[in-house]
Amino acid sequence: MRKKIESISQETIRRIALYLRSIRKLSRQNLTIISSSQISNHLSVTPDQFRKDLSYFGSLGKPGVGYKVEPLVKHLEKILGVDSERRIILVGVGKLGSALLAYPGFLSFNFRFVAAFDNDAEKIGKVIQGIKIQDISKMRKKILHFDVDLAILAVPAESAQSVAEKLVECGIRGILNFAPVNLNLPQDVYVLDVDMGTELMVLSYFSRRVLL
Amino acid sequence: MRKKIESISQETIRRIALYLRSIRKLSRQNLTIISSSQISNHLSVTPDQFRKDLSYFGSLGKPGVGYKVEPLVKHLEKILGVDSERRIILVGVGKLGSALLAYPGFLSFNFRFVAAFDNDAEKIGKVIQGIKIQDISKMRKKILHFDVDLAILAVPAESAQSVAEKLVECGIRGILNFAPVNLNLPQDVYVLDVDMGTELMVLSYFSRRVLL
Repeated sequence: MRKKIESISQETIRRIALYLRSIRKLSRQNLTIISSSQISNHLSVTPDQFRKDLSYFGSLGKPGVGYKVEPLVKHLEKILGVDSERRIILVGVGKLGSALLAYPGFLSFNFRFVAAFDNDAEKIGKVIQGIKIQDISKMRKKILHFDVDLAILAVPAESAQSVAEKLVECGIRGILNFAPVNLNLPQDVYVLDVDMGTELMVLSYFSRRVLL
Repeated sequence: MRKKIESISQETIRRIALYLRSIRKLSRQNLTIISSSQISNHLSVTPDQFRKDLSYFGSLGKPGVGYKVEPLVKHLEKILGVDSERRIILVGVGKLGSALLAYPGFLSFNFRFVAAFDNDAEKIGKVIQGIKIQDISKMRKKILHFDVDLAILAVPAESAQSVAEKLVECGIRGILNFAPVNLNLPQDVYVLDVDMGTELMVLSYFSRRVLL
């Protein structure tokens, strides 16, 4: 079982997250039971793919009956580690960082910003979305105080590596990296890059292909 | 050959984009020849993976010699469709949209915003990063005028589907979608979702795994 879980790909987990998003929406419409085909109508996956993805974690569905919505939502939340509040911090409060602090999609999945840091004296002390921007030198204390293990990194490319190293020293184990650089960090730290330039290039490639 | 290209995965193309980013950086350091292992030191891929990815598009390297940097950069740019300026538009100029307009990583890969749209009367007429925000009703005219085929969608979830349909009617063939919804569009339109909530959940999952 252990080995199986470790070999699960990012793509599978991304789909699991999309299932959660989608099934939560359905649950708000007071559906109590859903079928794989209802899910697959909502997303661009086949019912088989949905069943297969869930089967990695022990399926909850019954053939011909479907899935009970509430237990399924809880199950998916637990898989993803968002069944209770996850505290996160932001480092780098520029235009993108400020937008991320205000992004409603985090809180709706139980992620809560507890602190934000920058090294710009003009920004320090300001409050954005109820979060006071603090000097980057106070990071360690706050990370320990709030018991945070996930950080969002939105600093300029030049400083990303050194700031990321500081985060790791402070105990951070997962970094969502918006800086367009490949971070070089210890193996036990998980880095997920969100590079908008890269995504646009991927879009550029495939949007041409569909025209061929 | 045709079939081969069509079956290339998003993950491969994402790596190709990362190679381009990385090799451009190396080229600024006046390197004229690079080896697969130099690339692989910069990124978290093996030299074999790098050679394999490039081989889909006809390799330019020589065994034991390496790759000439300048032709390789041009080759990768051509694959990704960024060898000449790609005009893009933004729809939805909220906090995230404004940050995207100012994002330096787009222009450095030949993507240039030529217009931005919103339906909020308070925003229309304002200028951000040299781009005047226009009424969404003027979209069609501008898209035709500037011959745009790629759009960034940063509107609230509720309006994303209807705005996306309008974009498609206006001739847009690729959408980078920041709204947390699954868009339902014709098959010949390519949608790439960037959902920050989903990415954080993926990070949450894997950052726990590395601790096991």
